[in-house]
Amino acid sequence: MNGAESLVRTLSDSGVDMCFTNPGTSEMHFVAALDKQGGMRCVLGLFEGVVTGAADGYYRMAGRPAATLLHLGPGLGNGLANLHNARKARSGIVNIVGDHASYHIAHDAPLTSDVAGVARPMSDWVRMATSSRSVAADGAAAVEAARTAPGQVATLILPADTAWEAAPAATTAAAPAPRTRVAPEAVQAAAAALRDGDTTALLLGGLAVREPALTWAGRIAARSGCRLISEYNSARLRRGAGHVAPQRVPYAVDSAVAMLKELRQVVLVGAKPPVGFFAYPGKPSRLAPDDCRFTTLARAEDDIVAALEALADELGARSTPPAQVPELERPALPQGRPSPEGIAAVLAALLPEDAVVVDESISTGRAIPALTRGAAPHDWLTSMGGSIGYGLPVAVGAAIACPGRRVVALEGDGSAMYTLQALWTMAREALDVTVVVFANRSYQILRGEFDNVGAGRPGAVASSMFSLDRPALDWVSLARGHGVAAVRCDDLGSFAARFAAALAAPGPSLIELLL
Amino acid sequence: MNGAESLVRTLSDSGVDMCFTNPGTSEMHFVAALDKQGGMRCVLGLFEGVVTGAADGYYRMAGRPAATLLHLGPGLGNGLANLHNARKARSGIVNIVGDHASYHIAHDAPLTSDVAGVARPMSDWVRMATSSRSVAADGAAAVEAARTAPGQVATLILPADTAWEAAPAATTAAAPAPRTRVAPEAVQAAAAALRDGDTTALLLGGLAVREPALTWAGRIAARSGCRLISEYNSARLRRGAGHVAPQRVPYAVDSAVAMLKELRQVVLVGAKPPVGFFAYPGKPSRLAPDDCRFTTLARAEDDIVAALEALADELGARSTPPAQVPELERPALPQGRPSPEGIAAVLAALLPEDAVVVDESISTGRAIPALTRGAAPHDWLTSMGGSIGYGLPVAVGAAIACPGRRVVALEGDGSAMYTLQALWTMAREALDVTVVVFANRSYQILRGEFDNVGAGRPGAVASSMFSLDRPALDWVSLARGHGVAAVRCDDLGSFAARFAAALAAPGPSLIELLL
Repeated sequence: MNGAESLVRTLSDSGVDMCFTNPGTSEMHFVAALDKQGGMRCVLGLFEGVVTGAADGYYRMAGRPAATLLHLGPGLGNGLANLHNARKARSGIVNIVGDHASYHIAHDAPLTSDVAGVARPMSDWVRMATSSRSVAADGAAAVEAARTAPGQVATLILPADTAWEAAPAATTAAAPAPRTRVAPEAVQAAAAALRDGDTTALLLGGLAVREPALTWAGRIAARSGCRLISEYNSARLRRGAGHVAPQRVPYAVDSAVAMLKELRQVVLVGAKPPVGFFAYPGKPSRLAPDDCRFTTLARAEDDIVAALEALADELGARSTPPAQVPELERPALPQGRPSPEGIAAVLAALLPEDAVVVDESISTGRAIPALTRGAAPHDWLTSMGGSIGYGLPVAVGAAIACPGRRVVALEGDGSAMYTLQALWTMAREALDVTVVVFANRSYQILRGEFDNVGAGRPGAVASSMFSLDRPALDWVSLARGHGVAAVRCDDLGSFAARFAAALAAPGPSLIELLL
Repeated sequence: MNGAESLVRTLSDSGVDMCFTNPGTSEMHFVAALDKQGGMRCVLGLFEGVVTGAADGYYRMAGRPAATLLHLGPGLGNGLANLHNARKARSGIVNIVGDHASYHIAHDAPLTSDVAGVARPMSDWVRMATSSRSVAADGAAAVEAARTAPGQVATLILPADTAWEAAPAATTAAAPAPRTRVAPEAVQAAAAALRDGDTTALLLGGLAVREPALTWAGRIAARSGCRLISEYNSARLRRGAGHVAPQRVPYAVDSAVAMLKELRQVVLVGAKPPVGFFAYPGKPSRLAPDDCRFTTLARAEDDIVAALEALADELGARSTPPAQVPELERPALPQGRPSPEGIAAVLAALLPEDAVVVDESISTGRAIPALTRGAAPHDWLTSMGGSIGYGLPVAVGAAIACPGRRVVALEGDGSAMYTLQALWTMAREALDVTVVVFANRSYQILRGEFDNVGAGRPGAVASSMFSLDRPALDWVSLARGHGVAAVRCDDLGSFAARFAAALAAPGPSLIELLL
C-alpha cells in the first residue's frame, strides 16, 4: 500500500465517498488509488472553481463533506473563490491538494509555490503531509476537521512522494462530536428577551432556517409575539407552502435599517448581528439600531434544534401553532415582457415539490423570494460569501447529493460566466438541473452600486465596464458548447412553457431569458 | 480629489496607462476616477484569470506594467493562477485590489477575507493602503516595485474608504533604475568556462532569448564552439528565419538528461540550472550531470545584453557571424489526417512575419517548435509557471500591446477551458488573434504522466478523469457564444485553408482542429 492508497481508503472508510476532481501530474498516484481502493465516486470539473463549488453544494444538501482533488498552488488558487463561499456557508470540505515531491520543492520548478500560503486564507485547517507513513492519519484529521460543527474547510497538501512511497495502513476518522448543547442560562436569557414582545426579534441563520428548527422558531414567535427574521443569505433555507417564513433582512442598507429600526432586542440563533454587505459613505456598517441588545441563544456550531425546543418549552410554546404558514398558492402564468414580478410568478407557479433552488440571480432576482413564499415546498440556497460564480457549481454538487430532486439554478448572465464550465459536468453526469440565465447583458448591480457609493454619474469608461452587450453573450451557444441543451426566449409566456418543459425532462438544460 | 483619483492619476503619470478590469462595488470610486482623470485605457474581462493573464501578456510584449482592477480576496483568488504564471515569467504587474472600507472589515461581512494573505504567495510586493492621503504614494511605490528588474508582481490593496476620502495630490513613480552591469570577473569566469569547448553550454533565459542578446549569444557560440541552449519555457523567445536558434531543454526528464549529459560546464545567462518540471520516482530533479559546474554570467535582473556583448569582446567574437541561422523555409502544405508534424508544417508555411505565438498546445504541440525553426521571424511565448489557462488571456494582452501584429494562440481543448472567457474580450476589443484549439478531447498529457510516475495502468476512474469526450466540447459553439467566429476541421488541407483565411481577416477567430 502506498500513501495515496492509504489516504483514499481512510477517506472512504471515514464516510467521505465523493470526490470532485481536477487533477494533474502530482495527483496521479491519488487517481490510481481511487481505482485500486474503490469506494469513492469521482466527478470531473474542467475548472477548479467548479470542483470547490460542487463540494460546497454537496455539503449543503448531503450534510457531509466531499473531497476535492486539486493541482498545486495555482489549481487551489482557481478554487479559492468558491472555497471562500463554502467557508462562509460553513460547509465541510476535505481538499486534497497535490504538491511537488518534497525533495523537488527546493528546486523551484515552474509550478512551485507556497501552497499552504494559498490555502490558509480560505481554509479553517491546513496541513502539509510530511511522510507517506502518516498520510492516513493526516487524512483522518482532515475529515475530523471538515466535520467539526458547523462544518469547516480542511486542506491537506500532499507532496507527490508522500503519495507514492510506502504506507503501513489506512485508518478511520473519529466519529464527529455531537453539537454542543446550549446552557440553560442562554435559554433563560433568550426567553427573558422574548417576553418583551414585538420590539424583539429571533434572528435565524445556519441550521435554524431548516426543519425542524424553523417550526420551533415559528411556535416561539407565535407564542411570544416576537418578529422572526432570517439573515440576507442562507446556506440552505427551507421555504414554501406549509413552512414558517421568516422575514429576510434586505440587501440594501437603507431598507435593512428601516426594517430593523424598531428593534430593541435580537436573539441570535445560528446567526450573527446583521451588517451591510458592503460599506457605503455615510451609511452604517451595523444594520440594527445602536442601542439594540443582542442575546445569543445558540451559535452556528451549537445544537440549534435542541436550543429552540428548550426555548419553546421555557415559553410554553411546545404546542403553539407556528405563525406564518402560507398555503400553496400557484399564481396564474403571466404573459408579456419579462419583469421581476412576472419571473417570480412563473417560478411560484411551476417550481416542483421539493426543488432545490440555487439563487445567483443578483439584481434580477431581488423580487423572487418574496413572491415565491407560497410555492411548493423547496430549499433555497444563496451565496454566503458573496463571491460571484458560486451558483452553477453549487447546483452540480446539490444535484449529485440529491438524486431525484430537481435543481433550479437562477443565474445572472454576468455571474454565470465566472464558472460556466460547470455546465459540462452537468451534461456528463446527466444531472437534473434546470439553469435559467437572466440576460440583461450588463453588470446591472454595479450600475446601482455606482450610485449607492456616491460615485456620481457613470462616464464612458464606467458605462463600458458595466455593459456586456458588445458583443452579446449567446447563452444558447455557450450551453450547447458544453453539451447542454438550451433555448432562448424573451417573453413570459414562452419562458413559462420552456421552464415547464425543462423541469419535466431528465438531465440538464438551460433557458436564456432576454430581459 | 479623492484617493482613487490620486491613484489613477499617479498610475497614468507614471506610465501605467493600461488597466485590465473586473471590478465590483468596492472599486466603484476607482472606476469613476478612470473617467474623471482619463489617461488609462480600460479593458474588461469576464473572469479575473483573464484580467491577470492579459496583464502578463501585455508586459511580455509592451515591456511595461499594466494595472489590473480586482474585487476583494475572492476576485484576486480567481486571478492567482495567472499571477503565478506572470511572476514566474518575471512580468511586472500593478494589481489594484479593492477591499471593504477599513472600518467595515471588523464586521466580517460576507466578502471579508485576508486579502493580503491571498496576495502574498503570488506577489513580490504587497501593501494595504491605510489612508486616502497616502494612496498616491502607495501607487507610486507599487509601480516602482512592478518595474524593478526583471519585473515584479505588485499588489496594492485599496480599502474603499481610502478610495473615497480626500487626498492631497497625485505623485509620480521614480524612473526605473538601470539594470545592474555584471562585474568584469563574471565575464572573465564565463569566458574561461567557454574556452573549454563543446562540453560547455551557454544556457539562455529571460531577455537572453530576445534580440539583440540572441545575436550576441550566437556570436559567442560560433567563436567558442560551445552549445547554445534555452530553457524549456521562455516568456518571449525570438525565433524563425534569420535568428539564432538555441536548442531547447526538453520537457521529458529522460530526454533532457540525455541532451545535457555530456556537459561539464554551463554558463547561465538570465537562466537557472535546469530542473524537471515535475519529480518522478527514481528520476533526478536536476537535469544536468551531478559534476556539471555552473557559472553565472548574468542573472535575470542584470543587464544581459551588455554582459553578452562584454563576453563576446572578451572572446574576440564581436564580428563572428552567429551560428545556426536558418533561411526562411516554407514547407509545402500537407494534406490528410492531422499529425503533430503536419500541424507544424502548416504553421511553418503560413505564420506571418512578426507573429506573436502563444503556445499552450501541451501534448499536441510538442513537435511544433523544432519544425518551425525556419518559419518567418516571430515571437514565441510559453507558460513560465506551468499553470494551465494562461494562453488565451496572454494572447489578449499581447494583442493589445502589439496592434498590427498577428497573435496566434495554440491551445489544447483541455487547457483552453480554464479561461475561455478571454474569447469575449478578444471579440469586444476586435483583437487580431487567431485561436487554434487542438481537440483531442482528453487531458492527453495526463495519460502520459500517469505512466511516467509509475502509477500502473489507468483503471476506469483514471480513464474517466482523462477523458473529455463525454460529452464532446463543441468549440465552434463555445466561441460563437462569446462572439467569436469559429470553424471546425479535421484534416490538414482544410486546416491550412482555414488558418490562412483566419490570418488574413481582421479581428479574432477560432479554429477547432479535431485530432
